[in-house]
Amino acid sequence: MFFTKNSIRSTGQLLLRKSFSSSIIARAQAPLDASKLIINQTTTPKQKLPNEKLVFGKTFTDHMLEIEWTQENGWGTPVINPYHKLQLDPSTIVLHYAFELFEGMKAYRDSQGNIRTFRGDKNMIRMNKSADRICLPTFDGEELQKLIDKFLIVDKSFVPEGNGYSLYLRPTLIGTTESLGVSTPDRALLYVIASPVGPYYSSGFKPVSLEATDYAVRAWPGGVGDKKLGANYAPCVKPQLQAAERGYHQNLWLFGEEGYITEVGTMNVFFVFQHEDGKKELITAPLDGTILEGVTRDSVLELAREKLPANEWIISERKYTISDVAEKAAKGQLVEAFGSGTAAVVSPIKSIGWNGQEIEVPLAAGNSGELTKQVAEWIRKIQYGEEQYKDWSRVAQ
Amino acid sequence: MFFTKNSIRSTGQLLLRKSFSSSIIARAQAPLDASKLIINQTTTPKQKLPNEKLVFGKTFTDHMLEIEWTQENGWGTPVINPYHKLQLDPSTIVLHYAFELFEGMKAYRDSQGNIRTFRGDKNMIRMNKSADRICLPTFDGEELQKLIDKFLIVDKSFVPEGNGYSLYLRPTLIGTTESLGVSTPDRALLYVIASPVGPYYSSGFKPVSLEATDYAVRAWPGGVGDKKLGANYAPCVKPQLQAAERGYHQNLWLFGEEGYITEVGTMNVFFVFQHEDGKKELITAPLDGTILEGVTRDSVLELAREKLPANEWIISERKYTISDVAEKAAKGQLVEAFGSGTAAVVSPIKSIGWNGQEIEVPLAAGNSGELTKQVAEWIRKIQYGEEQYKDWSRVAQ
Repeated sequence: MFFTKNSIRSTGQLLLRKSFSSSIIARAQAPLDASKLIINQTTTPKQKLPNEKLVFGKTFTDHMLEIEWTQENGWGTPVINPYHKLQLDPSTIVLHYAFELFEGMKAYRDSQGNIRTFRGDKNMIRMNKSADRICLPTFDGEELQKLIDKFLIVDKSFVPEGNGYSLYLRPTLIGTTESLGVSTPDRALLYVIASPVGPYYSSGFKPVSLEATDYAVRAWPGGVGDKKLGANYAPCVKPQLQAAERGYHQNLWLFGEEGYITEVGTMNVFFVFQHEDGKKELITAPLDGTILEGVTRDSVLELAREKLPANEWIISERKYTISDVAEKAAKGQLVEAFGSGTAAVVSPIKSIGWNGQEIEVPLAAGNSGELTKQVAEWIRKIQYGEEQYKDWSRVAQ
Repeated sequence: MFFTKNSIRSTGQLLLRKSFSSSIIARAQAPLDASKLIINQTTTPKQKLPNEKLVFGKTFTDHMLEIEWTQENGWGTPVINPYHKLQLDPSTIVLHYAFELFEGMKAYRDSQGNIRTFRGDKNMIRMNKSADRICLPTFDGEELQKLIDKFLIVDKSFVPEGNGYSLYLRPTLIGTTESLGVSTPDRALLYVIASPVGPYYSSGFKPVSLEATDYAVRAWPGGVGDKKLGANYAPCVKPQLQAAERGYHQNLWLFGEEGYITEVGTMNVFFVFQHEDGKKELITAPLDGTILEGVTRDSVLELAREKLPANEWIISERKYTISDVAEKAAKGQLVEAFGSGTAAVVSPIKSIGWNGQEIEVPLAAGNSGELTKQVAEWIRKIQYGEEQYKDWSRVAQ
C-alpha cells in the first residue's frame, strides 16, 4: 500500500551512487577483518545453569559478537561485547520489511577440552547466499569463522560438558537503516549470540507424527524458501498449531497437485524405500530452489554415499510424492523416515496423517529406524572429535 | 536447520496452556482499551521541517503510541510516549523469524484545520488478519482507531498544511518473545509512529515503466502474499534493483505459466481495455489469496462502480494475463493503466517491458490516462474533507 516517490528516489539514488562510485566503493568499503577484533570483557559474569536446566535458546553466554556495516565504509571493527540489548529506532527496516537472516550452528566440547564447530564453512556460504538475496552485505566467511572461534574462546566456560550437550550459535544479520522507504539497506548489523543447550533426546529418540500439509505452502519456485531468511519462519507457526490441534507434532510440507514432499517442520526430510530388486533407496528432495540447503542434509548424503555399500544402497536426490510413500507403506516397502537438522541431527518419524489415512512408518531399531540411528552416530562422532572426517570439525583457537 | 525438542516443547506447552486455561484467559486477557490511555508529553519538542524538505519515512513526530501485549494478561495500558528507541534483546523473535506486520495510513489537514484519516477501519481489519496469520494478538480495531485519533491530536502540529501534504501513519505489530524457539509469540508490542510527507507528485504525475517479472515470484496460493507482513517485502528488493539496472522503475509481478498479472512493485494494479462493443473495462486481479487487499484498490473499485456510467463501463475483478494486455495494446485497445496505493493513491504506468518487446501504455491526459486522473481527484476530495462519501473520512477528536 505504499510505493512512494521517495522510496523510488531512495532506490534510484542508491543505484546511481553504486554505479557512480563503484571504484570509490572498491577503495573505501572495508572487508570483514577478524584481525581487528576488540574484546570488551564483562564485569558482571552470569551464574551458569546446571546441565539439566538448559532450555534451547532461552539463556545466553556472557558476551556477544557484533560487527556494524555501512554502505559508505563497509564492515566496521568486530567487537566482542558483554551481552546487551539492541537499541533500535522504531523505523528500523528489520522491524517492518524483514531484512533479517540467520544461521544455526553448534560448538561441542571434546574429550581433550577443545571447543569444536561442525562444517561452519557451509553455514558461512549459506549465510552469504541469504544476504545476497535480500540485498544485505556479504562477507568473507573464513573471517567470520575466525571471529566465532575467538568468541568461543572468550565464552568457553559456557560450552557444556557431556555427550549431546553443546553451545548453540546464532549468527544473525539485520538491516538497520532507519527509514520507512522500501529499498536496499545502507546500514546493517551482524551479530552472534550463543545459548548452552542439552541433548535433543535425553533418553533415546522420540519419534514424531506428521500431518501432510497442502493447504499452506512453505516455499515455491521463484521464492526464497531455499534461503535462511526470517521471512520463511513466522508463516509456518499457524499451520503447525493447526496440525497440533489435530494431534500431530509437525507439518510435512507438500508442494503442488502431485503432492511432492519437500520438508518437515523446519528440517529437511529423508525416506528409505525397499526396492523389489533387493536394494534400498535413501531419498530426499533435490535442491530445486524450494528446499533449504541443510548442512545436516548434505552431511547425511555424503556419509551415506561414503559408508553404505553401493551394491545394496541407492542414495537419491530426486522428486517424490506423498502417494509414493503411501504406496510403499501399503506394500510393506517403507523402511524408515527421518528429519535432519542442526538441533536434533536426525529426528525419527513414526507416522504421517494424509487424506484421512495414517501412514505408519516402521521403527525397526526401537524408537527409530536402523539407518536413522546409524546416521546420528556417524555425525555425533565427527562433531565431538571422536572420529576425523575431512575438515568437517574445526577446533577453536 | 533447527527443530528442537525445546521448540516442540514450548509450542506443546503453549497449546496445553491455551486449552487448559481458555476460561482463565477469557477472564484474565485484557482487551485493548483506549479509555486507559496515558500521555507522557515530550520535554524536548523537535524542530519542524519546512514542507519542501519532507522526505517519506525519514523524520518522525514528537511522540509514538505503544501498547504491550502478553499471553498471560492480554493488552496492557496504551501509552503515548516521547519518540524513542526500542530496547530489544538480541534473541527477540521479531529479529529472527519475522514476527512482524504493519499498516500504512495517512492523516490529512482539512480547510477547517481538522485532522482526518481515510478508511482506517479497513486498515484495522487487515491488520487483524495479518496478526492472526502469524499468531500475533488481535484487537478491537475501533479502539486502536480511537488511540490513533488521540495520537494525532497530541502531534497535530506535525500534520503539514497544503494540498497533497499529509502525515503518514505506520501502525506496527512485532513479536517480542525473547527465545530462539520457533513457536507462538507470548509477548508483543503494537506501536504507531508518524512521518510528515509531501505530495507524491509535486508537479504533476510522473508515469513509471515496468518490467514484467516471472523469474521471481512475489506470492503463491497457500502463502501469505495477501497479508501485510514484513516477510513479503525484503524479498522484492533484489528483483526491483535488477529491473532498475535494465532501465525500469518497478516490477510487474506475473504469476504462473499463463503470466497472470498480480501486482506492481508494492501496489495493486489496474488496466483499462476498450472493447469492440464500445464499452470500456476497468480491470484488476481478484482477491484470490495472492493479492494484497488494498484499501485504495477497494476505494477505486467502489467509486468507479458508483460514479462511472454503467452503460459505458464494466468494472471487473478477474484474472487476466500479460498476453491479454499485449494483445489489447497491439490492437489499439489498451486505454490506460495505473498502480494504486496509500502513498500515491494512483501511479500512472507508461510502458511494460515483456518478452523482448515494449508495450506502450497511452497517457491520454498528458502524464496519465483520463480515468487515472479522475480517480486521483475523487479520492483526494474525500481524504481532505472537500466531499463527503459514506464514513470514509474520520475527523480525529
